[in-house]
This record gives sequence, structure tokens and C-alpha cells, in this order.
Amino acid sequence: MTLACPAPRTEHTALLLGHGAGGRLSAELLEELVLPALGTPPGGMLEDAAVLPGASDLVISTDSFVVDPLVFPGGDIGSLAVHGTVNDLAMRGALPVGLALALIAEEGLPLAELRSVLRSAGEAARGIGVPVLTGDTKVVGRGAADRLFLTTTGIGRRIPELTPSVARARPGDQVLLSGPIGLHGTAVLSTREGFGFETTLVSDTRPLHGLVRALTPLGADIHTLRDPTRGGVAAVLNEIARDARVGVEIEECALPIPSEVAAACDLLGLDPLVVANEGCFVAFVAPRSAEAALQALRQRPEGRHAARIGEAGDEVPGQVVLRTLVGARRIMDLPLGEQLPRIC
Amino acid sequence: MTLACPAPRTEHTALLLGHGAGGRLSAELLEELVLPALGTPPGGMLEDAAVLPGASDLVISTDSFVVDPLVFPGGDIGSLAVHGTVNDLAMRGALPVGLALALIAEEGLPLAELRSVLRSAGEAARGIGVPVLTGDTKVVGRGAADRLFLTTTGIGRRIPELTPSVARARPGDQVLLSGPIGLHGTAVLSTREGFGFETTLVSDTRPLHGLVRALTPLGADIHTLRDPTRGGVAAVLNEIARDARVGVEIEECALPIPSEVAAACDLLGLDPLVVANEGCFVAFVAPRSAEAALQALRQRPEGRHAARIGEAGDEVPGQVVLRTLVGARRIMDLPLGEQLPRIC
Repeated sequence: MTLACPAPRTEHTALLLGHGAGGRLSAELLEELVLPALGTPPGGMLEDAAVLPGASDLVISTDSFVVDPLVFPGGDIGSLAVHGTVNDLAMRGALPVGLALALIAEEGLPLAELRSVLRSAGEAARGIGVPVLTGDTKVVGRGAADRLFLTTTGIGRRIPELTPSVARARPGDQVLLSGPIGLHGTAVLSTREGFGFETTLVSDTRPLHGLVRALTPLGADIHTLRDPTRGGVAAVLNEIARDARVGVEIEECALPIPSEVAAACDLLGLDPLVVANEGCFVAFVAPRSAEAALQALRQRPEGRHAARIGEAGDEVPGQVVLRTLVGARRIMDLPLGEQLPRIC
Repeated sequence: MTLACPAPRTEHTALLLGHGAGGRLSAELLEELVLPALGTPPGGMLEDAAVLPGASDLVISTDSFVVDPLVFPGGDIGSLAVHGTVNDLAMRGALPVGLALALIAEEGLPLAELRSVLRSAGEAARGIGVPVLTGDTKVVGRGAADRLFLTTTGIGRRIPELTPSVARARPGDQVLLSGPIGLHGTAVLSTREGFGFETTLVSDTRPLHGLVRALTPLGADIHTLRDPTRGGVAAVLNEIARDARVGVEIEECALPIPSEVAAACDLLGLDPLVVANEGCFVAFVAPRSAEAALQALRQRPEGRHAARIGEAGDEVPGQVVLRTLVGARRIMDLPLGEQLPRIC
């Protein structure tokens, strides 16, 4: 698999922050180092969750969470780690059946803080109805880790009617977004020292399996689901365009960007399209079912702002284009690297 | 669940290195903080791997690896992360069907080093015949992590004939050890600056699923399997004694302790019984099948030094006793905390 518009590769010899940012550097690291080193066939690790060999109704997903700070408006690393993995399963049309939780903690972490985020993880899991089946705890010396990292792995059972996959996006698909964008990244940033802006921004961290389940009646017409976490909407649209060989055209005026997000992004010099989200997804849906999908999403509280934001085409496969408010068309590129370190 | 011999609880307010050492502090952290905070029923997370709800032939296990240094005699963090998780599945009588691999890496990690340990992980997985199904990569800033941490989660399918569980150990069981002890911990320590002893010690890191499969014909007579990683043989025997409410008596003269391990432990003031292993397991076997189990283990190269090391009894449930070379009996306690930080 190659990038649609391969940029000249920068020859790095050491890991950069941007290699973990979900953008072009992340894609390079995966394709040129991680997958070849592991000996994994190309294209094998590009979905949010993988199907289990010999049990094709089950999918597995793993994610490490390194968010800084551990607690942010609207959530903490505990609930985020549960939601993030449940959502990766949901993007393959699966409902969670069990979680595994591995902790790497720094010596000296206050036990009260550890208890608090684990309670939050437990509450999030109970709210979803998924058990934490097993876990692991490692402690490293002071300075060898920054307080607490969590890795959650989820097993999900696919809803038989749903078969979403990045590879199934096709020209003509309507592109839907299940909720407003930019909230998680700007909420986390608003807590960081030095940014010093007062806001009422709250992360959108939440489980999305209920919204996905609501799409069940539309079955195979739900072609692709992806949640725009690291790298934001720009990254997932580019990945879908590249891997499914479709073009994507997005209407800027249709993007649900809350005014607080727009204001924070103005202040910080960020593009809301590359800011991480933890509570919405992008759906590519066959045209005949797009309206029904929107209606189904809007009937749930977490989908009430669902909107159609664009359409897939076949003009320039691999390219994502933004039609701006004044009617101009500009290419929405895969972000290069890190704008927002340790956002999830 | 309570400890067999509850020690006065020390009231800690912050995490200690010993909380991650697999000893008494680890048990306290798990029972008094992690499990209650997560809202997990007591006893739910004490096996090496958990059965998947709705798919009782499948088990799941997760482990984070923080070994320092990343490369040590006989292995590296990549192969260790694959073996460790495959072995946790094997201890529930399961053969691995898929792995998930999550990386947390420090900015500035040389890409050559990353490539090398991932190749090692890939080779280990291919050698076992288990695919790496999915993964995740996070990069944190310099100083926020020590080079590289790996978290591997494995899914295994249970061999139908085998039903090993800590709860199934019972009085009369013969206690077997599949290979020599103390190699991994002393090999890793030998590389650390300041220890400065020259040795030919090599970690025993290896997959154990083949040895477990060799026990298949003995079926339900294989009561309990545990690999003595963190906390060593002393920790796993104490955990089994505590959770199965049996006493355990071990013959010191029967313990397979290589002379280099004994010499290194003398030099470092360590007890080989608490040193971590990554390539052997303890088995509690019904008496009538003990000899057959030993024979089956010894027919494979990684089991050629398998030995009977003791017996389970019912005199003092929860207590592990070592019968020394001169015939004295001393209690082998659960180690308190950390002798060997970041050994796995």
C-alpha cells in the first residue's frame, strides 16, 4: 500500500513526537518500519479492529492511552481508555464483550489518583455493560514514565447485519458525521499550563456502540465507520480515501464545529479538522440509506447533531477536498505530524 | 479473598516500586485498590488469563513489558513480550490464536532500535505461528517514558482436554517444575551498570505452549499451571497455596538451580526462589499422572530438565514450606516487594 500523494520521505533516524500523531509521519512509521519489522502483510493493521482467526464474529482492538493531564474537562484517562477501545470495536460494527486493562505507573503516583481513574474506568465499563476480564500492573521508577499510561484491549462481537470496513467506501457514498468535532482536543489543551485560556469546553469522550447499533437496520449500506481521534477528521478522511481509492468532497458549511471550538482553534492557531475527537464518527453510507442513517443517529442523544458533511466521488481517488464557505475548493491533506501531543 | 497470613498493612499514599513486583505489595494493590476501584468481583483477575464471556473456549491475557535494558542476553523486549503473553495463555491450557501489540515509545528512540525489537517480536510470533492482528503506537516526549514499553494482549483457544486453573490445586498433587529457575532475572541484572559481574547467564525466555500441549493426554489430571515470572517460584507457589487453600512442601534439593544462577544470587544477595523466570512453569498434577507428566515434559528440549520439586498437602492451607538440604523446614513467604525492578 502506498500513499496517494507520496511526499518525499524525510529520513529520520530517531522517533519524533509526530510519529505518534496519527498523521503522515504515523502512516510512514507503520508502513515502513512497524509492519515490515513485524513481518505483517501490508494492509493488515489498518482497520480500527481486526477479525479474530477462526472466530470471524469476534474482533480485537488495542490502544495505549498517554493523555496529559490524567483528568480533563469531561473525563479522565480511565473513562477515555474504556471509551476509546469500545469505539474502535464499534467502528467494525461490533459490540464489546470484554476488556483487558494494563497499567504502567510511575513510582510515587498518589494512590488516590490511581484509585480515581480506575473507578472512572470501572464506571465507564459498567455503564456500557462490558466486563474488565483481566489486567496487569507494572510500576517503573521515578522519571521512567509520566505518572500513568493505560492500555486497553477489547474483544467485540460483530452485529451480523453490519460489515463496515474502510475498504468498502465507494464513489457516491454520502459522508455523515455523528456529532460536533474538535471538543476533545481543545478541552484537553485548555487545561495545559501556558495555554491559559478560559473556556467551557468539555471533551466529547463517550461510547459510540449505541449509535452504531442504531444503524443495524441499514445493514450492508453502512459501508465504512471511523472515529476521528488522533489526526482528527482530516486524518480519517484521508485514510479512507487512500485505502478505498475514492475521492472525498466535504462541504465546509456542513461541518458541525461548535463556536467554542472555533474560538479556541483561532486562539491556538489550530485547524478544527485535525483536532482529536473521542465521541463521534464518520460514516460512509450508500446514498439510498443516508437519510435513514441520519434519522437513526439523531434519535439518540449522542447523535442529535448528526449531519451529512459530504460525498465520495471518483474524480481523484485518494484525495480529500474541502469546498469552502465561499465555494473555493482546497485539498485537505493528511496532517504531517504532531500539533497536539498526548491528547489521548 | 484474604492473604493466608495477613501481614499488618502498611498505609501507603503513593505507589512504590514494590507494588509492581509480583509480591505481597502487588497482591495488596490488586485486592485493596485495583479490583475494588474497577468494581470487579474479588477473585476475578487472579488467573494468568481470563475466559471470554460467551466463548468459553477462548481466553484472553494482557501484559505490559517495561524491561530494562531493552536487549539482554538471550532476548529482548520484543521476543519477551510475545513469549510472556503466549505463556500466560498456555497456563490456562490454551494455544495462541492472535496477538495485539501496543507500543509506548519515547521521542528520540533510535529507529534502528525500535526496528530491531519489533523484528524480534515478529520472529517470535512467526516461530509460534501466531499472527500479530492489530496494534497501536503512541509517542511521548523525552523524559515522559524510558525508551520503549510494549503491551501484548493474546487470545488463545483452550485445548479441550486441559482445564488447568489455580483453584484446582489439591492436597496430594505432585508439584513439578518444567525447567531450571533464576536464569531470566539474573541474566537481565548481569547487564545493568554497577553490577559488574561477568557471567555466561542467558535468559530462559521462550514459549511454553508446546510443553503444555505435550501434557494434553493427561487431561484433567493437570490441575494447575503457572509460570513463575515476577516474584519467582516463591510468589506463584504462595498464590496457588492461598487461592486453592492447600499447603505446599518443596524439597530444596530437588530445585533445578543452575550453578551460575546460584553464584550470581550469592553475589547479589538474592534468593533464586524469588528471581523472575520467563521459560518454565510450575504444574500441580494428580499423583497418578505425575510420572507421565514428567516424561512428557522431558521429551521436549525446553522440558528436558523437568523435575518433581514437592507436593501439596492439607496441614497448613495457604502455607508454602521449604524442606532444606539439612532437613529443616522453613516457611517460604510471599516476597514483600521489589528486589529486581523492571525485570520484565
